[in-house]
Amino acid sequence: MGAPPRLTREVGIGVAGYGMMGKAHAYAYTVAPVMRTLPCRPRLRVISGRDEAKVSRAAAAYGFERWVGDWHDLVNSPDVDIVDICTPPGTHAEIAAAAAAAGKAVICEKPLAVSYAQAMDAAVSVQRAGVLNAVGFNYRRLPAVSLMKRMIDEGAVGKVRLWRATWLSDEFVDPAIPFDWRFDRTVGGSTIADLGSHLIDLALWMVGSVAEVTAQSETFVRTRPDPGGAGSRMVTVDEASSALVRFESGARGVFEMARTAVRRPCDFTIEVNGETGTLVFEYARLNELTYGEGADSPGLYGMRRIRAEHETHPYARNWWPIGQGVGYGSSFVNHLGDLLERWPAGPWEPDFKQGVAVQAVCEAIERAAAERRWVEVAEVTSP
Amino acid sequence: MGAPPRLTREVGIGVAGYGMMGKAHAYAYTVAPVMRTLPCRPRLRVISGRDEAKVSRAAAAYGFERWVGDWHDLVNSPDVDIVDICTPPGTHAEIAAAAAAAGKAVICEKPLAVSYAQAMDAAVSVQRAGVLNAVGFNYRRLPAVSLMKRMIDEGAVGKVRLWRATWLSDEFVDPAIPFDWRFDRTVGGSTIADLGSHLIDLALWMVGSVAEVTAQSETFVRTRPDPGGAGSRMVTVDEASSALVRFESGARGVFEMARTAVRRPCDFTIEVNGETGTLVFEYARLNELTYGEGADSPGLYGMRRIRAEHETHPYARNWWPIGQGVGYGSSFVNHLGDLLERWPAGPWEPDFKQGVAVQAVCEAIERAAAERRWVEVAEVTSP
Amino acid sequence: MGAPPRLTREVGIGVAGYGMMGKAHAYAYTVAPVMRTLPCRPRLRVISGRDEAKVSRAAAAYGFERWVGDWHDLVNSPDVDIVDICTPPGTHAEIAAAAAAAGKAVICEKPLAVSYAQAMDAAVSVQRAGVLNAVGFNYRRLPAVSLMKRMIDEGAVGKVRLWRATWLSDEFVDPAIPFDWRFDRTVGGSTIADLGSHLIDLALWMVGSVAEVTAQSETFVRTRPDPGGAGSRMVTVDEASSALVRFESGARGVFEMARTAVRRPCDFTIEVNGETGTLVFEYARLNELTYGEGADSPGLYGMRRIRAEHETHPYARNWWPIGQGVGYGSSFVNHLGDLLERWPAGPWEPDFKQGVAVQAVCEAIERAAAERRWVEVAEVTSP
Amino acid sequence: MGAPPRLTREVGIGVAGYGMMGKAHAYAYTVAPVMRTLPCRPRLRVISGRDEAKVSRAAAAYGFERWVGDWHDLVNSPDVDIVDICTPPGTHAEIAAAAAAAGKAVICEKPLAVSYAQAMDAAVSVQRAGVLNAVGFNYRRLPAVSLMKRMIDEGAVGKVRLWRATWLSDEFVDPAIPFDWRFDRTVGGSTIADLGSHLIDLALWMVGSVAEVTAQSETFVRTRPDPGGAGSRMVTVDEASSALVRFESGARGVFEMARTAVRRPCDFTIEVNGETGTLVFEYARLNELTYGEGADSPGLYGMRRIRAEHETHPYARNWWPIGQGVGYGSSFVNHLGDLLERWPAGPWEPDFKQGVAVQAVCEAIERAAAERRWVEVAEVTSP
Repeated sequence: MGAPPRLTREVGIGVAGYGMMGKAHAYAYTVAPVMRTLPCRPRLRVISGRDEAKVSRAAAAYGFERWVGDWHDLVNSPDVDIVDICTPPGTHAEIAAAAAAAGKAVICEKPLAVSYAQAMDAAVSVQRAGVLNAVGFNYRRLPAVSLMKRMIDEGAVGKVRLWRATWLSDEFVDPAIPFDWRFDRTVGGSTIADLGSHLIDLALWMVGSVAEVTAQSETFVRTRPDPGGAGSRMVTVDEASSALVRFESGARGVFEMARTAVRRPCDFTIEVNGETGTLVFEYARLNELTYGEGADSPGLYGMRRIRAEHETHPYARNWWPIGQGVGYGSSFVNHLGDLLERWPAGPWEPDFKQGVAVQAVCEAIERAAAERRWVEVAEVTSP
Repeated sequence: MGAPPRLTREVGIGVAGYGMMGKAHAYAYTVAPVMRTLPCRPRLRVISGRDEAKVSRAAAAYGFERWVGDWHDLVNSPDVDIVDICTPPGTHAEIAAAAAAAGKAVICEKPLAVSYAQAMDAAVSVQRAGVLNAVGFNYRRLPAVSLMKRMIDEGAVGKVRLWRATWLSDEFVDPAIPFDWRFDRTVGGSTIADLGSHLIDLALWMVGSVAEVTAQSETFVRTRPDPGGAGSRMVTVDEASSALVRFESGARGVFEMARTAVRRPCDFTIEVNGETGTLVFEYARLNELTYGEGADSPGLYGMRRIRAEHETHPYARNWWPIGQGVGYGSSFVNHLGDLLERWPAGPWEPDFKQGVAVQAVCEAIERAAAERRWVEVAEVTSP
Repeated sequence: MGAPPRLTREVGIGVAGYGMMGKAHAYAYTVAPVMRTLPCRPRLRVISGRDEAKVSRAAAAYGFERWVGDWHDLVNSPDVDIVDICTPPGTHAEIAAAAAAAGKAVICEKPLAVSYAQAMDAAVSVQRAGVLNAVGFNYRRLPAVSLMKRMIDEGAVGKVRLWRATWLSDEFVDPAIPFDWRFDRTVGGSTIADLGSHLIDLALWMVGSVAEVTAQSETFVRTRPDPGGAGSRMVTVDEASSALVRFESGARGVFEMARTAVRRPCDFTIEVNGETGTLVFEYARLNELTYGEGADSPGLYGMRRIRAEHETHPYARNWWPIGQGVGYGSSFVNHLGDLLERWPAGPWEPDFKQGVAVQAVCEAIERAAAERRWVEVAEVTSP
Repeated sequence: MGAPPRLTREVGIGVAGYGMMGKAHAYAYTVAPVMRTLPCRPRLRVISGRDEAKVSRAAAAYGFERWVGDWHDLVNSPDVDIVDICTPPGTHAEIAAAAAAAGKAVICEKPLAVSYAQAMDAAVSVQRAGVLNAVGFNYRRLPAVSLMKRMIDEGAVGKVRLWRATWLSDEFVDPAIPFDWRFDRTVGGSTIADLGSHLIDLALWMVGSVAEVTAQSETFVRTRPDPGGAGSRMVTVDEASSALVRFESGARGVFEMARTAVRRPCDFTIEVNGETGTLVFEYARLNELTYGEGADSPGLYGMRRIRAEHETHPYARNWWPIGQGVGYGSSFVNHLGDLLERWPAGPWEPDFKQGVAVQAVCEAIERAAAERRWVEVAEVTSP
């Protein structure tokens, strides 16, 4: 009988934003220590949000010790070691800069910013301050996606030739949805960045840098009812975009992201064809990875549906017996768990530098669509 | 700025057993308050286990305040309100009886016991003590399974005619796996009870009582290496069983459960055919429910793949936006969350009475297989 | 320029029955010579049927040289070498006996008869006459099913432990369907025989003889409107049956066949679990075979979806490039093509002897359901 | 008893080319009259090919009355009514022109030619001659694809917003495959045309005209072993191409076609997202069509898997009972059956004019990839 050995090292967490991302991160900080052995224990110190009723309720539900109305108070809290930014994209860079200036480590939800310049500012801030920093490309940490990356690195498909990635959602299908920040380019960013940044991050991670892009964008519902009045407001984001891509390695890629696909709640698929193999991940089957191996016996021609929960697979030992399956939440637990595991020495990844690289591709796509021409990513990064 | 409103009501939790089920329940107690609004806050007081090193590590990892080596100490802890039993099946009844005698509410993992008589004893204990009691048939609380039940109740398939349920695992495929308690009938129960009890619980819940059964059982690997020595030990459980069932309603059913199915990690499927519709649930696609509606337009002949995450679906509002998906863990969060929500007034379900009903069918199946004849469930319950 | 070399050997075909099976066989005789090199050319001499208008139209459509109203005339036609029986099951044995007596080779649609005794009579007839004979278990010749058999024979799953097979149809769902011969036990046979005989044939072929069975049968809609009048008629066939099976090898099996499953048009699935592997065939994915290989790399844990169209696969070279897919019709083309390829020396398979073996299992299942007990197949075959 | 009524009208068929397409067309001419009622009976008069041994064997196998070594002899045969061109793309236009000049109806495999100019020449030839003409876009006649078109026309998805189509094959994966005509741009055309022309045809059919495109092309294996010698030859076709498309309606599209995708034998997928619905067709599931209906009950959120074999569906009545499934061959039977049904009055579709329209888009894609810019289709058609 006895008290269990307690971790003496605690890490103070401050989360800016109490929406779905705030909830997902709170879930992850709570769960990670239960599912895996960590060198420190996250302590949910502060959550911030402008709506007092909502943020105080969230604080209670998520288990934060206190709430604040202004994120500046969070950033400046002495008991906060990590500032975790879960606010709309347009606010990320400013909060990140302030947090870095206060000497805090920074975790920022994706996309890092609503423009390349803004993302660069954020990256410069954290670099100057010398603080650990990370961007919330959580899908990297889905077990099957991590396995996909590992298999590519281990040569399971050979040199990559083709990459295709599609993200379909029906979020904007209904023209009666009133205008909100998601339709405002300066606050919500673009569909390219909102959905596409995940796909681009995965591509850069698995295939390498993008050299150039061409693209198209469309907004089918160009005005939305003003939520506060009788009029309507102009939608300033793309609803659907697609891009062709040449990677620096010579591989070719196709990206598509759309929020106007009926009965597609959040369906993303990535496929890579290499010289000797094919890998396919489909988010609606998130515990599986499909693998076609060119060197496999011809008599078994076809693809394997790998159950990406084997004890040898990434993150599998932290979760359930094979066959049981994890969900979306696991990506946050695995991501934030990895960051906590490397606290405070680091390195963390993907970091702001990688977030900037993603933003550069987003911006190149946006520019290519607007200017109707191939745009080199270098045009964005070294103008 | 402020401290969030705290729940003053706390519920002391004691978990007996630190294995996978202990972990799953700890996960659930930790997560449930984050994901939904509960009237009380579970507090992880004690965890018990005979291996000191392991239980103390588990206590630390899962966040328990202390650990004990002997479950009697857990059961008798004044600060424990709910005793949650996650030990091997053969020990359930005794712990449950002791917990009830100590006036604790009892949550018991499935199967409730390794025999009908033992299960009955447990049920009598909790009834006499007048304590809340529940059995861990967690799969009822998978959103898609809850939706299946709701749709059947709402008439989506009409009167049920046929039920089929199969559970395939490869847990026992390898003959080199040494003997352990799972192969010992008196400790681990049977495959009928271990895998089948879930399927039977779902059948009783969705279709109603079973009148009679016939069955077969087989053990392909009849001896296993003794883990402690050079010899071998006799396996006393079935590895694979199947049963035909007549429900009291006149519906017919087929059940199969096997732990000898190569590359089937934990694949269960249930299908119900009613007069006007069909519903199919496949665990490997746990966020989906397949529905064939007889009254649907003939030109759309086929089945719908319902994404069982719509905000109108059971538990959906507690989790993620549609399309993201939950995993195995969600079933525990939903289950224990439901119990906590009804603390301390109850009722809880499924309760021990329902656990006994499941055990009766398990035992009828076992008897039918042994005696090679149809067995009425009433033969078991009213001998 | 020139006339192509013609096959001088022609085989005269007479088909009894012009319904769907008559059409399917005519399709196959027409297609087989185009798709593969055969040693003889089938010539569609006669088709028989009692409805003159219909049979004459069918003769024209299917390309028969003439039609007759009475099958006796077909059986006795000197230019007919093979009598192919596509009439309702209750008439098979009599026509087969007459054809054999006339010295014709006989191909008979499944099930061979509506009782074991009748099937035995048919088998004795063809044996006495010394004529080639075959039963129409066409699904054996689906490429993926043939591949499944070949892989089992080659040891891909090791010694078979478990077999499960389910056939679901919605043919009888609607209670307003008037009575016809399919509901009459003496003419249409049973659901066990109609749907189940295919599954049993595949089991005997792949796993070996069945030793004993237990079973249940149900008829949910017990009377049907009389098509000719105002009254109703008693349905004398089972609508849904299921059986547990012990094979002589010690393997265990589960069979289910039902014509009351809404939105299940004709969905059959077979799965075999052996000591070292699993194979699954799903008819709705008829160009695929799913294979779980126990010896496969653990890191690739899962199953392969084999595209059963590789040039090394059965029948593949006769059809299309891989990935294109064949349909139901191919099973007939492959089956009748195989028979023609072995004309006139034989052997043909499956033959009447195998049809009798299937019928014995059907009858054992029927008897087991009626008598509510385990029935040895030997009770049927050696009464 | 009697001879069946014979169709007096016969149509003489001459097929140029005895390869896989020649076989598929012979299959279709043979099968169509069996499966459906036609106003005429195709008679396989002549097949042409330069390799005498092969063409004479093909003539015998496919049931042609004679063979010729030179297609001119076929085109000029008095007993040939329809010239059906199944030779490599680079030869299509010349044969078509000769056939038209000889007053024959012309059916030409796709793509119609290897350039827009050549396709135009062919179209002008048939128009001037006033002969019926058709292009072999057989996938239009897959039942599920025909159903997709019908549902779009009937408003099942509302106004189309997005179209995506991908065709993946592994035909060119192996760098050791020697050079043959498929790698020669002037004979085989391009991958854009070979695979993509099907996808473009379906897009034009379902969504309408394409206004402009941008694209990329890549050839990963730039030289191939010379089959006749020790050297190597330059590959002059693209192996993988992708395109972004703006339709005249304002809809946006993404196309991809690649012959370098390991373990993708011939997998094509098309998806359309309209204002109120989504339709998805996947060739590997060719008897199904997936439909997401925005107006469907929210509680049933998801998509229907329509079994595209219902008797109300296109072509279904000509084939098998629902659930049995057809294969690739059915597309040819349905296509050529439709043409024969309209013999000799017509109209036939898709005709050469539509083939030219497809070729214009192919050429615009090719030009866009080469010139790295958006290309209007009008630049190709009205230079």
